[in-house]
Formats: sequence, C-alpha cells, structure tokens
Amino acid sequence: MTFPVVGMIGGGQLARMTHEAGIPLGINFKLLADGPQDSAARVAGEVVVGDHRDLDTLRDFARGCDVITFDHEHVPTEHLRALEADGVPVRPGPAALLYAQDKGAMRERLDAIGVPSPRHRLVRDPDDVMAFAAEAADGAAASVAAGQDLPVVLKTVRGGYDGKGVWLVRDRQQAAEPFRAGVPVLAEERVPFVRELAANVVRSPHGQAVAYPVVESVQVDGVCDTVIAPAPELPTERAVRAQELALRIAEELDVVGHLAVELFETTDGRVLVNELAMRPHNSGHWTQDGAVTSQFANHLRAVLDLPLGDPRSRARWTVMANVLGGDYPDMYAGYLHCMARDPELKIHMYGKDVKPGRKVGHVTTYGDDLADVRARAAHAAGYLRGTIPE
Amino acid sequence: MTFPVVGMIGGGQLARMTHEAGIPLGINFKLLADGPQDSAARVAGEVVVGDHRDLDTLRDFARGCDVITFDHEHVPTEHLRALEADGVPVRPGPAALLYAQDKGAMRERLDAIGVPSPRHRLVRDPDDVMAFAAEAADGAAASVAAGQDLPVVLKTVRGGYDGKGVWLVRDRQQAAEPFRAGVPVLAEERVPFVRELAANVVRSPHGQAVAYPVVESVQVDGVCDTVIAPAPELPTERAVRAQELALRIAEELDVVGHLAVELFETTDGRVLVNELAMRPHNSGHWTQDGAVTSQFANHLRAVLDLPLGDPRSRARWTVMANVLGGDYPDMYAGYLHCMARDPELKIHMYGKDVKPGRKVGHVTTYGDDLADVRARAAHAAGYLRGTIPE
Repeated sequence: MTFPVVGMIGGGQLARMTHEAGIPLGINFKLLADGPQDSAARVAGEVVVGDHRDLDTLRDFARGCDVITFDHEHVPTEHLRALEADGVPVRPGPAALLYAQDKGAMRERLDAIGVPSPRHRLVRDPDDVMAFAAEAADGAAASVAAGQDLPVVLKTVRGGYDGKGVWLVRDRQQAAEPFRAGVPVLAEERVPFVRELAANVVRSPHGQAVAYPVVESVQVDGVCDTVIAPAPELPTERAVRAQELALRIAEELDVVGHLAVELFETTDGRVLVNELAMRPHNSGHWTQDGAVTSQFANHLRAVLDLPLGDPRSRARWTVMANVLGGDYPDMYAGYLHCMARDPELKIHMYGKDVKPGRKVGHVTTYGDDLADVRARAAHAAGYLRGTIPE
Repeated sequence: MTFPVVGMIGGGQLARMTHEAGIPLGINFKLLADGPQDSAARVAGEVVVGDHRDLDTLRDFARGCDVITFDHEHVPTEHLRALEADGVPVRPGPAALLYAQDKGAMRERLDAIGVPSPRHRLVRDPDDVMAFAAEAADGAAASVAAGQDLPVVLKTVRGGYDGKGVWLVRDRQQAAEPFRAGVPVLAEERVPFVRELAANVVRSPHGQAVAYPVVESVQVDGVCDTVIAPAPELPTERAVRAQELALRIAEELDVVGHLAVELFETTDGRVLVNELAMRPHNSGHWTQDGAVTSQFANHLRAVLDLPLGDPRSRARWTVMANVLGGDYPDMYAGYLHCMARDPELKIHMYGKDVKPGRKVGHVTTYGDDLADVRARAAHAAGYLRGTIPE
C-alpha cells in the first residue's frame, strides 16, 4: 500500500496521541524525539533521536517523509524554510508558524486582518511598560495603584507556555524583570474577562476547514485545568463569532493542520484572541472521546491533505481534566482506584515520569448531566494527583 | 511510574489495535512478531522478532513482561505451561486456551457444563462421517440426497479459521479429504439457523466480568463480512441467554481477557455455540467506535487485573464492515474517496499488503437509522475493496 509517511518533530504527549490516532488511519508515523524516554518515543514504531535545532538532523529525518509536522513550535524558522527549499512539505509551513512562535508578529498580523485582541504594544524598557499601563488603566477604567499589579501582562514574544514567560508586575522595578531574558517583550492590557474559551479549527492545504464546538478552558495558576465542551451557556451568536474568527485566522495565516485559538470572553460580551497554537492542543483533548473525529486524527488528515472528519460532539457534555504530577511518583494505585470507581471514565496517561505540577495525563468524562460529568472528571484528576482522598 | 509491561504474542491486526488501546492506558506494550512488517510490528514501540513455537524465544521474550497475552491461539500449550512454571502470568492461561485451540476438547467441555452446541462427534474415517450424517439428517429432518451436501460440517480440531479447516462434503469420497491432514476431525450437525450471533465478554483474574451487547455477524463465504451491534430484533430474553452462556463459559473455563462466543440463532429459537476465541475478535471491532470501552482496552484491563471498563454502546446502532483486499493493491485513492463521501466514517487500516480476500482493514459507522448506517459501512468497505463504483 502506498500509505504516506508523516514525520512529526517533538516527542511529547501531542506526538504520542497523534501516533495513536495515526494507527487506525494506516499512516506510517516517524518521530524525531529528544530522547528514547520521551512520551511519544515510548510507543511509536519508528523513532529517530536527535536535536530539532540542528538542520542536518532535520534533513536526515525528513528523508523518506511525505510531510513534516510538529508537536511543538521550537524548530527554528530558517531550518523550516531550508526544508521547504529542499522540497519537503512542511505543515503548518514556516510562514504560518511564525505567528505561533512570535507573539509580536501574531498581534501585528491579527490587527492587520481585523481580528480583535487585547490592546497591546511591543515595549523596550520599564518606562514603556509604565506608559502603556497608564493608558490601559485609563481604557479599562482600572487604576494603577501602589501595591497592586499593574493592569498589564508582560510576555516574552518567543518561548512562553503554560504561564512561563508571562509576568504580572507591580511597579517599574518589577517591570525590569522580563527584559533580562534579552528577548523582545509584549505588553498586553489585562482585559476583564468572564472566562477563557478556545475555538479550535482544522484546515487542509486545499482549503477545507472544520470547526470544533467552542469550549471553555478553566485555568488554575496559568495552567489549563479543565476543558468543558461545549462552553456552557455560551450564546450561539458568540460561539459562531468565535468559530468564524478561528476560521478566518486559519485562512489568512495559511495554517494547515489543527489551530487552537485561545480567547477571552470579556465582561462586555466580546471575544478577544489570547494565544494561537498551530498543532493539536490541550483544549482539544476532549475530542478523543467526545467528538466524532479527534483533533489528532484531523490534524493528520489535514497535513496529508485528506478530506477532514466530522468535528461534532458525540455527547451532550464532555469534560477533560488534566492530571498533574503530585508528590507521590507512582500513580498506578490511584489509576486502579479511578477505574474501579467510574467504569465510564477515560484515562489518558502520557508515560512520563511524575514530577510535581507536570502534565502527566488527562481524563475525560461525558454525559447529559454537566454537574455530574464535571465532578467525575475533577475527582479522577484530583485523586490521581493525590490532592483529594476518596 | 510503575506501569506494567504487557507482552503480546503475535503481530497481526489484533495486536496492532491492542497496542493502540494501550497507549492511553499508559501500558508498556511489548510485541513478539514473526517479522518487522507484521501489522502490529509497524506501529509498536518494542518489537521482538521471533518464532512463537520456540520455547527459548518465548522465555527471552517473557523476561521483563508482567503478563503474557495473545493475538492468536498458535502457541503450543506445553510452552505456555513452561512459562507458567517459570512464574510468568499467562492470560488466558493454557488450561483455558486449550478449549480455543482444540474444537474436540471445546465440545466435550461445553457438553459437560451444559452449554448447548450443535450435535457433534469426533470421527475417525469417512464411514464415521456417513453414519453421523444419517443421524443428523434424521434429527434435523434434512435428507442425505445424492448430489447435495451432507447435513454435516467437518472441521479439523486444530488450526482452522475464517472458513479454513472446514469442509462441506457430498459423499463418502469427499468425506475422505479432511482426514488427509492427519489431524482429528470433528463432525458437527449443520443446524438450520436464522443467523449468526456473537456474545462477547471480558473476564479478569479476580472474576469481574462484563458482557458486550450481543451482535449479529453476517458471514460471506465463511468470512465475517459485517457485524451489527446490537443484533437487530433479537428478543431481550434471547440476548440475555446468549450473554449468560458467554459469562458461564468464561467462568467455567477460567478465561481471562476477551472471550468471543460465536453462536447460531436457530430457526426454532435456540442459541447454540459455534466457536470460541479467547482474544479480541473480529465480532468486537465495532466496540472501538461504538462502545464506551473497546474490547482491546478491556482485554488489556483484564489481563492486568485492572477494573473493567463499561461495555455499553454509545450509539443506537453501530455497524462494522471488514475491508478485504481486492485486485488493486493500492487502497489510498479509495480511502480518500471514502473520507470525502462520509466525514463520519471511521476507517481502521491494518498496514498490511493488499492481497485478494485478505482482511486489510475495517470500517465502522454509527447512528440512529440502521439502514443508513449499514449502507454507509457497506459502501465504504466495497469501495475500498474495489467491488463497487461510486
């Protein structure tokens, strides 16, 4: 059979679950991992261990791959351009990926295509920060008061994730901190929001696109804790607007594959773009058990330019809760308990060593009663982490 | 994490799909395959290539496995006993597996525990066959007429599958054929049946068991073509009887893991056991997309003595259709067509070279309208095989 070879760069849990989704598709999956103990490297058939920042390694890896895609955004843009020049299809391509790698470029581009973001400015020093904070306070009717955080968020334009590379600061002195990394800093208005949403879409090279139901993403300490699909009590008009924004971004930025658009739903009913990710995303894990076609399967279908699968929900409510590492390194006893307590629970472990706060798995639950579905997911995730007893 | 290692013997599609199911469970999966191009060997992380009939190979493979299980029934019983004597958990164990390996032993055992089978007898020669045929004809009100098949089925007691090792014969001369293999031959009455059913259950070492909905299995030329879950218009009382039979067999024979009980639903409303398989089975493939917990996930949970997952259906109707190889070796174009035609279709390819008549994949569909669900599955399977045009 002439089924194609997909090369995925990065050995984390996203690659692990993409491989899982590729098995029924008959796809030949090839992995470039940092080490043999990476989450995906433990389960994939064809694994190359090497440095994704090294062009020769990438070129060797790309040989025999029909398309290259990604578990993360850390491959240097110039290397991806070199692979493209070699004739290797890179999906999403470097021109699109730039906007997932560089928050400054992303904001500029979204402004240009009229997609609403929080107010923002690239800042050069603490004085810039203080000036922007004064403007933001004015616009948001907030105040810049001594002893309180400024109404701005500072972000490194490259390399941040899960709350890393993000700062809240109180004064000019604290505002110096983000500049120490030597990377440009983006200042964004802290918008008053009701909750965070995610509008996830998948787009193929020939322009077909599908939109998943808009979900609510509940963050704890800057890390995604729970995702509820669909977002409860979201007015249809607002959900459609969020989906349209995501589809527009995918098209305008020529994204191929899964695009996660993280959004703020503001107190005044707007939806503003927070972050973009051009790969399968934590806010889409619920689709494995809750949608007709998972984000992982559709990402593969997209990068191979295959027709996309149905993104609709299979259940009235699906809830995904992340399992973070706790103080106790062995989760197997807790896992057994969770299976016994809830035979409908879906557990997804990543094969990673447990470290406090590390994402080591997730659970999903589904059903008609949202309170019950949420409670079951929260119990399982908390029990596995060790933060709640029976 | 101390997640266990499951060693599976046999590299076919059942092992491939078991590995797929083991990824989210966080199970470490180790495979003993005949060759690196085996269906499962193409996608599994840890693959040992070796001969499953060689005890030293089995012993080497078993080292480091927490439990051994199977993709097929072809490992010699004495080797499994040797592994058990070494202290390796073998699940299902050799004492149970014997009844899936030897149809004569299976019939004798089912008789002993009062489970109904077609009338049967171990036969030694063509005269025995003719005598049994005369009795069967009498009992079934059928006739032994010249030029017609006798009302008996002859089976080699070991090694048959998918219509292989099974004979219909017309006379004493043809009845000599099955004896040429030098293996004992079982003669069974050809019961007048309405259709074939399968009652699939999963049982764990500590005795927990779950029963999947009873399905209808539609055979074409002795090979499973379509499975419908649940079996349409099956009276509840009869479905429960079939599930009870399967649960009783699992308990009496001390089966651990998935047990498929293939049944005849007779014209007079009885359910008789046709075959047993102690592993994931073609009649259970629908559970991947149609049940809360797939047969593969539950097989793993059972052999690891983990609590079992919910076996209930997620849809009103689920239909699985096997994809057999046709004359054209490349299925990729057809696969693309099927995805485009039906975004809800679930395709499962086995990564096997296409040969005419070979099972190379399956498709599943689900929904509320059985006629539509069946038509979609049949179209996709037929189109992939190349037997129907658009």
